[in-house]
Amino acid sequence: MPANARTLTLNLFLNHAGHHEAAWRHPSTQPDALFTPDYYVRLARRAEAAKLDAVFFADGPVLHGGVEHNAVGGLEPLLTLATIAAHTERIGLIATASTTYYEPYNLARLFATLDHLSGGRAGWNVVTTSSAAAGANFGLDAHPDPEVRYARAEEFLEATTRLWDSWEADAVLVDRAAGRYADPSRIHPAAFAGEHLSVAGPFNAARTPQGRPVLVQAGASNTGREFAARWAEAIFTAHQRIEDAQAFYADIKSRALDLGRDPEQVKILPGISPFLGSTEAEARALEEELNELSVPAYGLQQLSGQAGVDLSGLDLDAPVPLEIFAGAGDVTDNARSRFQVVAGIVQRERPTLRRLLHRLAGARGHRVVAGTPEQVADTIEDWFVAGAADGFNVMPPALPAGLDAFVDHVVPILQARGLFRTEYVGTTLRDHLGLDVPENRYTAARAADGAGRPALAQA
Amino acid sequence: MPANARTLTLNLFLNHAGHHEAAWRHPSTQPDALFTPDYYVRLARRAEAAKLDAVFFADGPVLHGGVEHNAVGGLEPLLTLATIAAHTERIGLIATASTTYYEPYNLARLFATLDHLSGGRAGWNVVTTSSAAAGANFGLDAHPDPEVRYARAEEFLEATTRLWDSWEADAVLVDRAAGRYADPSRIHPAAFAGEHLSVAGPFNAARTPQGRPVLVQAGASNTGREFAARWAEAIFTAHQRIEDAQAFYADIKSRALDLGRDPEQVKILPGISPFLGSTEAEARALEEELNELSVPAYGLQQLSGQAGVDLSGLDLDAPVPLEIFAGAGDVTDNARSRFQVVAGIVQRERPTLRRLLHRLAGARGHRVVAGTPEQVADTIEDWFVAGAADGFNVMPPALPAGLDAFVDHVVPILQARGLFRTEYVGTTLRDHLGLDVPENRYTAARAADGAGRPALAQA
Repeated sequence: MPANARTLTLNLFLNHAGHHEAAWRHPSTQPDALFTPDYYVRLARRAEAAKLDAVFFADGPVLHGGVEHNAVGGLEPLLTLATIAAHTERIGLIATASTTYYEPYNLARLFATLDHLSGGRAGWNVVTTSSAAAGANFGLDAHPDPEVRYARAEEFLEATTRLWDSWEADAVLVDRAAGRYADPSRIHPAAFAGEHLSVAGPFNAARTPQGRPVLVQAGASNTGREFAARWAEAIFTAHQRIEDAQAFYADIKSRALDLGRDPEQVKILPGISPFLGSTEAEARALEEELNELSVPAYGLQQLSGQAGVDLSGLDLDAPVPLEIFAGAGDVTDNARSRFQVVAGIVQRERPTLRRLLHRLAGARGHRVVAGTPEQVADTIEDWFVAGAADGFNVMPPALPAGLDAFVDHVVPILQARGLFRTEYVGTTLRDHLGLDVPENRYTAARAADGAGRPALAQA
Repeated sequence: MPANARTLTLNLFLNHAGHHEAAWRHPSTQPDALFTPDYYVRLARRAEAAKLDAVFFADGPVLHGGVEHNAVGGLEPLLTLATIAAHTERIGLIATASTTYYEPYNLARLFATLDHLSGGRAGWNVVTTSSAAAGANFGLDAHPDPEVRYARAEEFLEATTRLWDSWEADAVLVDRAAGRYADPSRIHPAAFAGEHLSVAGPFNAARTPQGRPVLVQAGASNTGREFAARWAEAIFTAHQRIEDAQAFYADIKSRALDLGRDPEQVKILPGISPFLGSTEAEARALEEELNELSVPAYGLQQLSGQAGVDLSGLDLDAPVPLEIFAGAGDVTDNARSRFQVVAGIVQRERPTLRRLLHRLAGARGHRVVAGTPEQVADTIEDWFVAGAADGFNVMPPALPAGLDAFVDHVVPILQARGLFRTEYVGTTLRDHLGLDVPENRYTAARAADGAGRPALAQA
């Protein structure tokens, strides 16, 4: 394809035994391997062989309910990605981490180290954590409101980006003869004091290959979108319909432009969970096979949590009462936005409760498609061409088979159509995504005014 | 050697270009490689080939002063050890992390994940962080006093050990037919509420191969020793003289016994920084070569920080004034204890300031020995046999050459004497150190009273 053609982004979203809630029950999966490194390394190497942009892990500092009937809990993503980094060469490595429940100095070090260890492949999916149970794992009486969480997130990003800029690219001298390891005038204190957090000192690591990790976000509420438009370089979204995805896409690109950013430096990546078969009927049969393995008590528990009411007494084979989703228009955070997606399904499709549970079992509100490789490639191309997506977060319903099917059968079609790379053209995640390396603020300021800025030596 | 013989422990303490402060200036070192994974992987593989027990990294969430003249700053240890884990099979992996500046839920996840990823090789060097500058990197007006830090550390260990016990060994069922992934009656909330921190919920990862990481500590003050005697399974110490090390050894083992612990389950590991040569004169010449590369301004800055007074105006070639170390008897924390070691050198040796700086340049108060491999093996054996050490934290003055010299020339002598293993006999760090796998408190309680305890299902 031409070097300047718009290129699709494809990430592999790794989730336990797969994204379908019953994946662990399917004979093709490996639920006994979920705490072993080889399981993740093999999946990542498969994705790398197919030239995917990145592997991605969700995360939260809490045990999600439903462990009795689903393979929840798991390994910490940053360390798992360091393991994957050691066994791969090119593929990007995106970890979710919470601004609400981490300290900026610690998290900045973890991501900087991952970027160093991987030669510039780190990405950070910035979340404020929507699980209400998390607060109690950190000594808080209550999980903070979304507005408070986003206010802290703003300060967190300001603090961490200052830390990542702390050492300018030329700070490390290694001048053995003069006995000068580093130039202190090129190492800057963070000097950030906010309402929610403060960081005084300079960072304790050299500037990383990418300057900083690629910043990813999943903002859906108004506050979340504003935050994403300001900070995010890639945005994960959940949309069922192309028109909703187009509206979101246009809104984010417009917000980014209003903030003085290049809209092409913000990639919009909806989730897609593909069931693949040599015929559409075969794909649908696979989807149905997984759905039938769902444990209704699990799905009801998840949906009750989203709806805020106990649904366990309802008839599985009667239509879902519309009033349960009456308040869904009010999207205050990402959990609410996922609830809104569910409400849309209920209002459009008027399903029975069992049918709704099956609809959600696939990818918790993300888009599930079932079809032939050509059909899945078509919908990917349609969304990409129609301005609904710059690429996708691919969520295989069951692992490793769902990944194998996607990379063996869908990726070659996308490559043949000139939509997806056949070789990596660069070495970093920024290279893959077509994202600029951010300028170091201190280097830029000195270049702008031709004079020094206060640095460690003067601090 | 007989299976039940007392076996020496040897850890490799990895520190930048080496433990000597001027190591980075020596032509044998690789200061340009300090932010690359291969550097650490090669060193760890070398240590593993020699059957060492573990590699160990110090750490602090702060940039230590003196970056102009020394290679300080670096990669975050846990992620670096995950990388090493991916490239090794047996060697233990010990990371330092701070109870003052981490949250227990986050740190428990990192260490549990490292233990899973490495097949049971994780160790945690528990520190409360002695650097006064750290607080300002975490929004604190002041670095907490040692007593407050140790009080939090006690709660931190209680909380993290509860999290590591949260999932009993039989919690994960993976019963596909019944649709039961886990048994919620075997997953327990931490339910810890202390004065300094609280953790409510259950952990979000399965029990690790070692049950929990090996707990390491470096307590030297009375409070620190009490903490170490209660929690530590290995203790890193800094002693110059065998009689001081023997007194410490006897004191810790006695404290552990008083607390109802088996003293053999607490390993005492002094630091040793060996300069090696084919003759003693050659070894001393190497030490002198490194000392001559020291930058006096750097050593003065470090010593001034320890002494709490500015020494930069003093004559380098006059004896160190004794009164500077008058208050050194008062050991309130580990920084003070290191200062006490320095005071001992000054009082015994009455060195010039230049000579003192050279004495400290080697390993910041840890014991430096210069000699032939036989001489170094002799002192290791002497301390081991005399009840001054169960093994050593080996601190090569310059890397990789200092490690190569130790494993090529000293380790074979120790093996020939039957003091050190020629093959690993187990796969975990606990196996190497001869440490028991801790009992799960919930499993033990149920076994003791024959009945269930409150678990997730009832919480």
